[in-house]
Amino acid sequence: MITVLPVEGMPEVHPGDEIAELITACIELFDGDVVVVTQKIVSKAEGRLVEVADDAERLALIERESVRILRRRDELVISETVHGFVCANAGVDLSNVDEGVAALLPVDSDRSARHIRDAIRARAGIAVAVVISDTFGRPWRRGLVDVALGCAGVAAIVDLRGTEDTRGRTLQATEVAVADELASAAELVMGKDREVPVAVVRGIDPTWLRESSVKAEVVRPHSEDLFR
Amino acid sequence: MITVLPVEGMPEVHPGDEIAELITACIELFDGDVVVVTQKIVSKAEGRLVEVADDAERLALIERESVRILRRRDELVISETVHGFVCANAGVDLSNVDEGVAALLPVDSDRSARHIRDAIRARAGIAVAVVISDTFGRPWRRGLVDVALGCAGVAAIVDLRGTEDTRGRTLQATEVAVADELASAAELVMGKDREVPVAVVRGIDPTWLRESSVKAEVVRPHSEDLFR
Repeated sequence: MITVLPVEGMPEVHPGDEIAELITACIELFDGDVVVVTQKIVSKAEGRLVEVADDAERLALIERESVRILRRRDELVISETVHGFVCANAGVDLSNVDEGVAALLPVDSDRSARHIRDAIRARAGIAVAVVISDTFGRPWRRGLVDVALGCAGVAAIVDLRGTEDTRGRTLQATEVAVADELASAAELVMGKDREVPVAVVRGIDPTWLRESSVKAEVVRPHSEDLFR
Repeated sequence: MITVLPVEGMPEVHPGDEIAELITACIELFDGDVVVVTQKIVSKAEGRLVEVADDAERLALIERESVRILRRRDELVISETVHGFVCANAGVDLSNVDEGVAALLPVDSDRSARHIRDAIRARAGIAVAVVISDTFGRPWRRGLVDVALGCAGVAAIVDLRGTEDTRGRTLQATEVAVADELASAAELVMGKDREVPVAVVRGIDPTWLRESSVKAEVVRPHSEDLFR
């Protein structure tokens, strides 16, 4: 059984804030917890905020954060970001920030996750895992889901290839994107219109707790990508 | 807070079995629970099993279940199924079925979900929601996640467009694919190598409990799809 707990009472986050400190003031954590933190407050704490006066500046910003544009329609740009993610508007986000300000994705979300994980360990003496989440659209399916931009202390992918199914037949392709599923599970208690930027997933399989990286394990290399 | 519970002790499923009966024998359900059932046992109960003697027959079957092939590489076919899903091998699945047998996707997974929901209500008098889940790959990201093929009694998409963010600014694109996130959350307690084809998600926002359909709400029409 796993439980997913919203972290209530988080204050507004400002550049320079230590997110680990804000979280540990709001919830008691336990060894093996996965702390899922939305990208927005990580970007704010890291000062990844840029002034955008108008739509033209916003578009220029999106292009600067992109290495390649895949599709455009009206105001929507689907691009590959400098981090290797394919998403809308290069992750440049105007919601829940001040008017005329855009939040960019963290420079290195795996590093951001490690920083929060290490700071929680240093402050509270608790060994948690951390996932940095963001809300992405998908081709072919309507609706947005939360996925992992970065992780620390939990497997981005759990590789079940080579294990046997219940008939003793070797499974072929069952690399489960655990960090993405953790981000999605966390989103179920966050909502978009509430002030809940952090959730805790408690009770995951302890064998999933290991060093990992979304960049290294999830971002699909061009060579094996059929849609880029 | 939500909890995600694996349903332990489910027996092997055979054509003609009533899945609702098997589930209610294994776990006590409560009003508002979301019962997530993997496609594999739904396909088995509905007799969606086809004999495949060899790779050529398997490939012919994939083509018959597809309306359009998007990509091919080696043994992998990415196609649009007759149901409108874009996935690997048209959902034709050789794992956890007998040697020489393939499981096809349910004909109408929303209908399958309604059937299980109604049968649970009839048997146990409990008003649950049901999600039929399957394991899909994604472009641009490695690893598989569970998504919803069908649903009953829970929103496939929760539309938060038009609600205000915490700054009072109207949010633009926040249609959350709740059924997909429920499927992903459920997968975290199922694993692929264990006999856990059903999980229960307890404690979701009760405003999400409504009539819905993956086919109507999640499958993206060609006209608005930038990648088909």
